[in-house]
Amino acid sequence: MSDYETFNGGPSKKIEVGDLKVPFREIPLTTGETYRTYDTSGPQGIDPHHGLPKRRAEWIAAREARGDKNFSQMHYARQGVITEEMQFVAIREGVEAEFVRKEIAEGRAIIPANKRHLELEPMIIGRNFKVKVNANIGNSAVWSSIEEEVDKLRWAVQWGADTVMDLSTGKHIHETREWILRNSPVPIGTVPIYQALERVKGKVEDLNIDLFLDILREQAEQGVDYFTIHAGVLLQHVPLTANRVTGIVSRGGSIMAKWCLAHHEENFLYTNFERICELLAEYDISFSLGDGLRPGSIADANDAAQFGELEALGELTKIAWKHDVQVMIEGPGHVPMHLIKENMDKQLECCHEAPFYTLGPLTTDIAPAYDHITSAIGAAMIGSFGCAMLCYVTPKEHLGLPDKNDVKEGLMAYRIAAHAADLAKGLPGAQDRDNLLSKARFEFRWEDQFNLALDPGRAREYHDQTLPNEASKTAHFCSMCGPRFCSMKITQEVRDYAAAKGITEHEALHAGAAEKASEFVQSGGEVYQPAK
Amino acid sequence: MSDYETFNGGPSKKIEVGDLKVPFREIPLTTGETYRTYDTSGPQGIDPHHGLPKRRAEWIAAREARGDKNFSQMHYARQGVITEEMQFVAIREGVEAEFVRKEIAEGRAIIPANKRHLELEPMIIGRNFKVKVNANIGNSAVWSSIEEEVDKLRWAVQWGADTVMDLSTGKHIHETREWILRNSPVPIGTVPIYQALERVKGKVEDLNIDLFLDILREQAEQGVDYFTIHAGVLLQHVPLTANRVTGIVSRGGSIMAKWCLAHHEENFLYTNFERICELLAEYDISFSLGDGLRPGSIADANDAAQFGELEALGELTKIAWKHDVQVMIEGPGHVPMHLIKENMDKQLECCHEAPFYTLGPLTTDIAPAYDHITSAIGAAMIGSFGCAMLCYVTPKEHLGLPDKNDVKEGLMAYRIAAHAADLAKGLPGAQDRDNLLSKARFEFRWEDQFNLALDPGRAREYHDQTLPNEASKTAHFCSMCGPRFCSMKITQEVRDYAAAKGITEHEALHAGAAEKASEFVQSGGEVYQPAK
Repeated sequence: MSDYETFNGGPSKKIEVGDLKVPFREIPLTTGETYRTYDTSGPQGIDPHHGLPKRRAEWIAAREARGDKNFSQMHYARQGVITEEMQFVAIREGVEAEFVRKEIAEGRAIIPANKRHLELEPMIIGRNFKVKVNANIGNSAVWSSIEEEVDKLRWAVQWGADTVMDLSTGKHIHETREWILRNSPVPIGTVPIYQALERVKGKVEDLNIDLFLDILREQAEQGVDYFTIHAGVLLQHVPLTANRVTGIVSRGGSIMAKWCLAHHEENFLYTNFERICELLAEYDISFSLGDGLRPGSIADANDAAQFGELEALGELTKIAWKHDVQVMIEGPGHVPMHLIKENMDKQLECCHEAPFYTLGPLTTDIAPAYDHITSAIGAAMIGSFGCAMLCYVTPKEHLGLPDKNDVKEGLMAYRIAAHAADLAKGLPGAQDRDNLLSKARFEFRWEDQFNLALDPGRAREYHDQTLPNEASKTAHFCSMCGPRFCSMKITQEVRDYAAAKGITEHEALHAGAAEKASEFVQSGGEVYQPAK
Repeated sequence: MSDYETFNGGPSKKIEVGDLKVPFREIPLTTGETYRTYDTSGPQGIDPHHGLPKRRAEWIAAREARGDKNFSQMHYARQGVITEEMQFVAIREGVEAEFVRKEIAEGRAIIPANKRHLELEPMIIGRNFKVKVNANIGNSAVWSSIEEEVDKLRWAVQWGADTVMDLSTGKHIHETREWILRNSPVPIGTVPIYQALERVKGKVEDLNIDLFLDILREQAEQGVDYFTIHAGVLLQHVPLTANRVTGIVSRGGSIMAKWCLAHHEENFLYTNFERICELLAEYDISFSLGDGLRPGSIADANDAAQFGELEALGELTKIAWKHDVQVMIEGPGHVPMHLIKENMDKQLECCHEAPFYTLGPLTTDIAPAYDHITSAIGAAMIGSFGCAMLCYVTPKEHLGLPDKNDVKEGLMAYRIAAHAADLAKGLPGAQDRDNLLSKARFEFRWEDQFNLALDPGRAREYHDQTLPNEASKTAHFCSMCGPRFCSMKITQEVRDYAAAKGITEHEALHAGAAEKASEFVQSGGEVYQPAK
């Protein structure tokens, strides 16, 4: 196994498939088999000052050379063109490229891939593909540095983030973003209104469309792959939030609501939406239509404000699609379990099956410091109902900025949620890893159990806390039950007995031979020794 | 607040309601209000050598004095008698005592309450009450001591365990149990077959009903409140497990399967079930009918073995009820999300609405070290569908024995799951705590937000990692967004503006007065200062 590196605490290696060099990660098993997983980690060990290799440079150069104007994947897809990005994600997902093209053409999936983000390893977001996970990073005025943010990005993709949002709001917002983009193998999303507000020194009422488009262009040139834009917060929705327990909790939503009230005019992002579409088409930036009125508490879930905005987002989706601009729709938030499905169904209906991208949802408000768990429950559920991407929530949600450990905890909870949803959707092959791991568990192949785990290092560490010696990793029991009570061992004995006798267990039972039973007592009695 | 103690990192105090001294915990808010929660923690600060006060001594003495033979709550309930235990749980749950009686009489709920467990604070398990959480503790042959187990019990009830199972299998099994019972305010469950197997030195084939009844009597006299008994693992089911990925994973199930094969006879717990019922009625011990064939992997979920056993458990339920013995039914295990509801529906149907008590279920196999999360997802779902009690899973599941920290992590994940399920079921009052906490959050009452949290200490600690000084606990912003971008602050400003003008936001919008908008700019522009 000399060519395997230690990655996240277990052996694996990156492999690249086909001419497009689509990355996977290969995990070796002690049986000689290998297991190949989807891999988001990107090229490793690269100096951040240098940035990642520009793997899309040739693809984009060819399109520019022939004078394309609309670079959107949807535009190509609708013309029947299968781009390199589509081929790439088809290999990643294990589906036909034509299927990818069709899903994109019809708006059910997006490949966020700014033509200026040449370092990107393309990925797809849509409910007929693997459920994806987004990690938010970003400094604020209060805390954290650029170096820390780049480090968090690399940490996030190492633990499986499919996309990363840079929510920086403090100083050096442009610089931070540049470093992040040049070092990101995954799509980067932003919320441009944050930078716009910095530009007008926090005076919400001074925001306007020209300023906003300037910011968009600046970020577009850097390579941002998707923009959260709160264009669906309409003047008429704002009063609907007045009696909420937690009002408006989306930063972008509250900014736009305040702007609407201050001017007593309709949201300028809504009234100028087509101008925004034109810019996005030019770069192939995807819309992530923000849910500015998402519920911030269980009490506010699925109310008129949220659903009113959702309808507006559906209207905007149609306009974006007219420009061949890719769209996904952001969703809540805080939603009790019994209201989650209604959210998903309504989104599919209102937004014409554009991919849904939700923050959790959190299924209760009472567990700050554990909101990665309160929300993983809701995320898994909405994922199983068809949500395409889950924005993670870390244990620090509502309390503070996530540090590296929080980023990891959030990602693990969300990779679990996404995978549980893939299983529930019956995605082909999704259960392979579960089956391999469970088989390894049953056969007491401890190393394989650890190495197939989402977090091999922690699985091994936890095991070793009770039974640290090497021998116990091949032992046919573990510390939970001890040698005498191991049910898996007993099951194995039952099977072995049947095999040794050349009969199936079924026959052993139904042959009705009393001697067979007594033979079992003799042999089984020896196999099953009491613990010393 | 001088009479409040610091409990789990926040101020609260135990209060006792009514003549029966039903415990609750009162949390003070900075507004002068208080919030009262269900409390499992029991009397605090008592020397474990002394044991808890015997609060049920008089109740039981009166029943013994009048010569009762069947002490089961179901027996009394069916005679129309409302026991002290029923009154007690009625106050705890905030329902009428008659409702409790009826639910017990009809088998939809149980109060596990051995007449010898005098220290018990009665609680109820049933789908029309709050969803409950069980914590497993217990030493094994490999690791841990009696002192540690008693300490874990106290730790478990402090963090909200509604019942505790003592799964000890090593030496000193009797002594450990005695210490646990004398110090437990919550019902204690055991799996008596473990001790029976110790008695026959691990020789499964030597197990028999007389020995087993001896063990039951020994544990009954100590005060065990419910027994897991794997009486539904029938000879005909065993071959159904032969082709499973993970065979039989229940320890009790594998023992009984091995016994059946060895003797080529029907499970002696099944054939002698009425003798067991007679003993349980005498003490009022509840059956927890074990799911010996529960799936141990996603691949094995909802198979013929599991459902075959479930039907047998339904048959046994009817027999137990004939003896007025209380019954709950154990359930899986590992189940992908889309198969969870089928489990719950089938259990209700097969087992005549007896309460369901599941282990998780885990919704994927690929995350050892995070199985408190993989399973909290399934637990919340099955709880919302009607499962009455959720057996926790700790991060050490499949890897090692849980230590104190694991017990806490498991409990927090499961209290979240249980509460999320209560919200989804629409249990009256369940949302009160969410609403209070969210209101506190919105109003920047940080201390109230921490103190209403399931884990006040950790919520405060996480907040303080970024903003440690006292001033920030009254600040109207937090580290996530910094002072400039706080959406809650903006919402508050929108509301304040409307209030100051003596108009509703709705009117502000629809009055169509341009001056109103410009007034807002003037006042709002001042309120909304950029960060320094």
